[in-house]
Amino acid sequence: MKRGIILFAHGARDPQWAEPFHAIHANVEKLSPNTTVRLAYLELMEPRLKDAVNELKQQGITQITLVPLFMAQGGHLKEDLPKLVTEIKTAHPTIQITITQALGESPVLLSAIAQWVAQQTQ
Amino acid sequence: MKRGIILFAHGARDPQWAEPFHAIHANVEKLSPNTTVRLAYLELMEPRLKDAVNELKQQGITQITLVPLFMAQGGHLKEDLPKLVTEIKTAHPTIQITITQALGESPVLLSAIAQWVAQQTQ
Repeated sequence: MKRGIILFAHGARDPQWAEPFHAIHANVEKLSPNTTVRLAYLELMEPRLKDAVNELKQQGITQITLVPLFMAQGGHLKEDLPKLVTEIKTAHPTIQITITQALGESPVLLSAIAQWVAQQTQ
Repeated sequence: MKRGIILFAHGARDPQWAEPFHAIHANVEKLSPNTTVRLAYLELMEPRLKDAVNELKQQGITQITLVPLFMAQGGHLKEDLPKLVTEIKTAHPTIQITITQALGESPVLLSAIAQWVAQQTQ
């Protein structure tokens, strides 16, 4: 069973906005060299989630782990994302999509962010 | 000269959205016990930035480090924040405000996020 990863970010009008997500994407590809990793956006940037899923499906990938690169659980993750995933699962019933916690739900990352704040403000 | 830290986040309608930022706030307070640390929001949540600056000023704090807890440099950091800070500096000319990089500009944090992604998707 081929697996893929989709890194899911909000999107913005300004292309520079996406730079951190491209950096994370490149890092994840290095850490998971045997897994196809794609970025996808909720809005304002391409590819959207359904397009990324389509691309992975065309590569024969049937199991996708979707990682929300959002700091916090707001309406985008509680409402928009489940709706999108339901639509995608209806269109592609053979694809299994697992959504992980958002990055702001990781105590390890929140601690790393706090340490970065403390270092910057000393 | 008394120093303060303001952690600046976007804000959202859903109170749960702010939980990661409260966690970061608590962590930073532990790491910087002699510094006053406040959260402030761009919109939708209180306190707003000017209210947080007012509070620190009333405590006799004249030097504020503002840390944008944003993943990426978009319109909020490029346009909204500089405009807000200019207004605040005009209203409080004795307060010095230094804006740090956004968290998505830290290679160390981007690497930590990528490692978290890889761990979650193994």
